[in-house]
Parts: sequence; C-alpha cells; structure tokens
Amino acid sequence: MKIICLQENLIKGLQVVSHLAGKNSNLPILNNILITADDGIITLTTTNLEIGISCKIRGKVEKKGQCTVQARLITDFISLLPKDNIVLEYGDNKLKVNCDNNTSFINTLNPEDFPLLPKINKESEYVINIQDLKNALKKVSFAVSYDSVRPEISGVLISLENERATFVGTDSYRLAEKSINTNKLPDEKHVIVPLDTIQEISRIINYETENEVKLYIDENQILFGINGIELVSRLIEGSYPDYKQIIPKESKTKAEVNTIELTQAIKRTSLFCKPGINDIKLTFVSEKGEFVINSMSDQIGESMTVVKANIDGVDNEIVFNYKYILDVLSNIDSSTVSFEMIDNKTSGIIKTKDDEEYLYIISPIRQQN
Amino acid sequence: MKIICLQENLIKGLQVVSHLAGKNSNLPILNNILITADDGIITLTTTNLEIGISCKIRGKVEKKGQCTVQARLITDFISLLPKDNIVLEYGDNKLKVNCDNNTSFINTLNPEDFPLLPKINKESEYVINIQDLKNALKKVSFAVSYDSVRPEISGVLISLENERATFVGTDSYRLAEKSINTNKLPDEKHVIVPLDTIQEISRIINYETENEVKLYIDENQILFGINGIELVSRLIEGSYPDYKQIIPKESKTKAEVNTIELTQAIKRTSLFCKPGINDIKLTFVSEKGEFVINSMSDQIGESMTVVKANIDGVDNEIVFNYKYILDVLSNIDSSTVSFEMIDNKTSGIIKTKDDEEYLYIISPIRQQN
Repeated sequence: MKIICLQENLIKGLQVVSHLAGKNSNLPILNNILITADDGIITLTTTNLEIGISCKIRGKVEKKGQCTVQARLITDFISLLPKDNIVLEYGDNKLKVNCDNNTSFINTLNPEDFPLLPKINKESEYVINIQDLKNALKKVSFAVSYDSVRPEISGVLISLENERATFVGTDSYRLAEKSINTNKLPDEKHVIVPLDTIQEISRIINYETENEVKLYIDENQILFGINGIELVSRLIEGSYPDYKQIIPKESKTKAEVNTIELTQAIKRTSLFCKPGINDIKLTFVSEKGEFVINSMSDQIGESMTVVKANIDGVDNEIVFNYKYILDVLSNIDSSTVSFEMIDNKTSGIIKTKDDEEYLYIISPIRQQN
Repeated sequence: MKIICLQENLIKGLQVVSHLAGKNSNLPILNNILITADDGIITLTTTNLEIGISCKIRGKVEKKGQCTVQARLITDFISLLPKDNIVLEYGDNKLKVNCDNNTSFINTLNPEDFPLLPKINKESEYVINIQDLKNALKKVSFAVSYDSVRPEISGVLISLENERATFVGTDSYRLAEKSINTNKLPDEKHVIVPLDTIQEISRIINYETENEVKLYIDENQILFGINGIELVSRLIEGSYPDYKQIIPKESKTKAEVNTIELTQAIKRTSLFCKPGINDIKLTFVSEKGEFVINSMSDQIGESMTVVKANIDGVDNEIVFNYKYILDVLSNIDSSTVSFEMIDNKTSGIIKTKDDEEYLYIISPIRQQN
C-alpha cells in the first residue's frame, strides 16, 4: 500500500473515525484504524464491535493495499505534522510516514484480523436535514442514561412516519420529545438507537457541512450516511414504553419566564440543596406574577429567588430535581420557556416558545409530609 | 455586622481569597472565609495554616462585626447574582444575603475560632515590578516539584541583593534561573518560598493591574503585598543547594533553533517513546546545520525529525527526558532558543534570545550501552 494525501484531509478523516477506537481493549486490533487503499479510494475504518465507522478521504493511491495502525498514535502524530503532503507506505509490517522533514515507522497489526463491518440493505433510504438532526439529538439525548434493567430506554427512539421524524429520550424520571418534518419517507419505522451511537453521530455531525443525512435500516442495524462517512450500529431490541400516555393533556397553571433568569435563579438556589438531595421547590403566585424558587438544608442554609413571570391559572407548587430543569435549559436556545403543571403529584411540562415541536416532561418529587 | 457592596467588588475579593480555603479539612473553619467589617474597611480572609490571604474590598459598613461562611458556597453563590448592590447582614448565626430578587440565609461558624494570620515586621520593604515577578515565577516554578526527602528544593529560591532579585527552581534533574533588576533593596536576603505559595501568588497576580508587589521578610515568614491583598506564608527552612557550581561554564556545541518548530518536532517524536520512558535523542550535525530528534520503541515504532538550526562547534549527541524540554518551551515567549552542550554526560543549557537573564539546565540521561 502506498498513498499520498494532504495533512488536512488525512487529519479530518482520522478525527472522524479514531474516537471510536478503544484504548484498553482485550482485542488490540480494536485500538487500530484500518487504512484501505483501493482503485483511487482511501478509506479509514474503526469499530468497537457495536458501532463501526468508515470515512473516505481524498488522496492519491500509488499502490493498493491495507494496513492497521494504532488510532490514537496516528491521529496525534498526523495532527502534529505540517499542512503538507504526507506519504503513507506499508512494508515489513510497518507503516512508513514521510512528510517534509519527518520520517517515521509505525508498528502495524494484520489487517486480516480487523473485524468486517456489517452490510446493510440500502434499498429504502430515509433522508433527514443535518441541522434538524443535530438540533433534535441535542434536545433529546441528554435525557437518556444507560439503564441495565431497562435496556429499551438506554437509547433514543426514532420514529419515522408520515413525513415526520420523532426523537424521544427518557431515563424514566423525565422525557424529551422532538419532531421534525422530512421529505416523503419510504416506510414506517420505529427504532431504538443506543445512546453511544447517538453521541458518536452527534460528534461526527459537528465536522460536517453537508446538508443531509441518509438513514438505512435493517432488522437490527442502522446506517447513517453523511458525505463520505458511514456509521453503522446495532439497534436496541425491545419495545419502547408507550410514553404518549404520560404526557399531561391539560394544565391548571401556566408560567412564561425568561430562560436566562430562570437558569441563574435555579443554579443559585441549587447551592443550598442538601448534598446528594437535589430538591428545589417552585411556587407560582398567579396574581403577583411571581415564580418563586427555593431550597433549604440544615447544613447550608436557605435561599429564595423571585422571578417575574406571566402566570395563567391557579396558584400552585411542585418539587423537582433541579438537575432535570438545568439539563433542558442548557440544551435549548429559546429566550423564554413556558412551564405547565396540574398539581404536585403530576408531571410538569416545559415547552420552548421558538420550537413548538419540542416538549420536556419532568416527574415531581413527592414530599413526605 | 452589616455591609453593602457591589457584586463586582465582592466577587473579585472572594475569588482572590476563596481558592485557599479547603474542601475536606478536619478543621471545618478552614473551609470558611472570615468577613470582617471595621471602621469603613471590609476584609475577606482565608488560611490553610501554611498560607493566609486577606483582601480588602470596597463597600459601605453599616454595622461593624465579623462572621465566617463556607468559601466555596459564598463564592459560587455571589458569582451567580446580578451586578448590583448586595447587602450582607449577620444575625442568629446566619449570614443574610439580600440582592434584588434573592434572599438567602447561609449558616456560619464562630469567627472566634478562625485562626489569626501571623503578623510580620514591615520595617524593611522589598519592591518588585509585578510584570517582572509574574514573568520570573512563570519561568522557574514549573521546574519545582514537591520532594519530601529534600524539602529545601520543594520551593523557589528568591535571592535579593545588589538591586537584583534572582529566582531559582529545580527538581534536581533540571533547574531554571531568572534574574530581574529592582530598585535599591534594603538588605541581602535569601529565602525559599514553598511551591504552593508561589502558585497562589502567581494566581493572584493575574487578577491585579497594580504595578508593584511589596515583600516583607521575617525570620520564617514572608508577606507579599499587592494593592489591598496580603499573602503571608511560612518559609522553607534549610539551605538551598549551591546550584551555581553545576551550571556549565563553557560549551562545545551551540545550536539556535525556532521555538515552534522544535516544540512540534519534540511532541511528534515523543509519541514514539516507550510508555513510561521519556528518552529522546538529540543529534547535532554541525556542517549540515541539522538538529535531529529521534525516538524509538519496540512496541510503537520509531520517528525522526530534522530541524534546521544554526550550529556552531562540534557534532554532538545527547539523550533527554522530552518532558523537561517541552516544559521550558511552553513557559517562554522567545521565538528562538539556543541550546548549548559539552558532551552526553554533562548537563545541557537552554537559553532564550529575548531574555538574557534566563537559563535552564537539564541533566542528560546516560545510555547504558
């Protein structure tokens, strides 16, 4: 194998794929990047056996072939080379890297030991705008956490039907749902994509200026195609909970409040929570237009902030884990949020003014007295 | 106690002193800030028993008194309040903090339990320009590391004599020395200031726009005075090693090289060092003007970079711990550095072109073959 490519092109590809390669794996080949040079096409590939990523890069193939080198080493190394042509040549079980004033030989592992990425049937193609996907994943993925008892909620539900894509994330205490419009979709599909895959896709999207992502779905695999990048992942088996039934259909109190003021007030108040207990109390005083946030603990003291709000409906109060509120506030861009509730035993809803296709539900903490 | 001050003034003072307050101390009072309001002067104080910091802040004293509150809590809390007037009032063992729309009560500890900072005789005053001090501490303190066997090198030597202040740091494998001119100094002094104190002073200097630092030295204490801030610290007892004798007086090879090119080349090459072993070899080829840096390990491979350099003297080679070279390169601003050496058994010297009062010595690693 012998290829020549620009440092900028090589490092971009390495950064896309190298993140997935492990560091302490029992299978050393999984720490490596597979470099494949074939008929004018250079492809970099990594896998952790659950997810596989391949990325095509621009360059000149002087001699076809394959080799695998440690992902972290080659990425760190190439990032420190000048923006110039780099020659990669395989021989004697070493990859020779030549560039301007530097010559290096990097140990390799046998490319035949590198696991094959699964093939996916590409007949049905689901196309989603990349900015919409980025936005949707940001707004729902923070609500997911790995749950060994309920693997079916350890991922993001993606529902594709009727020219709509809906993304849902939950950890069973709070839930986020975001819908987007799409072009006509070939077929109705509901899949649960593991959180790791979602995080990897979110990371890769940040490098991309392409304007669409193509999805291909098999029985238990999904493939995301973005420009020359393909990410393939297993899907989570099982049924996603029927979350629609827990979304409150009405509200008795509705408050509209400035996002920054609310964020600052909750951060301040949270400092007074008993360590390990994250309860803060929200009180809505309708007539005065006051949204009161308070918290206290014997060890630290107590704090109360009054935030001005437009409040419709009855006076009300509810206790939440403050982290669940800060999570949503830090993942939306809206300058105001609305807060809707029925009583202190029913989930509250947060909506954003500038995105009507987003909602976030939080379960209240029941007080013992 | 009742005081009123602007959030900006209060937070600046809190940031100066709160860093020193502990988190998990056996003496909870050391986690606290002492707030003292006295005759129109508000002072914030913290101590860890080795170092004490006090900082005066602007504000209005409505009622004299003292209280102590947890440093981390009050600093985080005040930083989240709007830029407005804040009223702090002590009563019922609580500090009431009132500001715009927020009212909080913070638990306190008895101010009588707060340790007194030592008093220092201020008759003799040593004045140093603050930028010079900042520069000197940056260039020598990275060479110091805590050494329980040789406590006398666990700090920075400050020698004050003949209108010169000289700062020295070493960990016995490398040594940095920086001299600066000063105004007339009252007396000759040689003191060893603990590394923690140096780091604390370096941190505080970054907040300050004042142009001078005043030093007062007692038998076993030093006080740094900057604007309204006073930092008092114990000194390290013992004699600093007679380091001047290990500075090579001559050289057989001298190379001048671009700092950025050298840094990049060493970082690249260091990736090929055997894990845990940080040896890289430098070879000077006088006639070709080549500074060759290489490294190899059985596990990883090998790398060689040739950096163009102006080389005077004989061909030579030497092996160093690459971290010692990167340390100095990242703490200087000079665009070129010069490298001087005698042979592979004698310490090499790095000097910077734009600061002739700085030098850095590194012991070579003796190769076993």
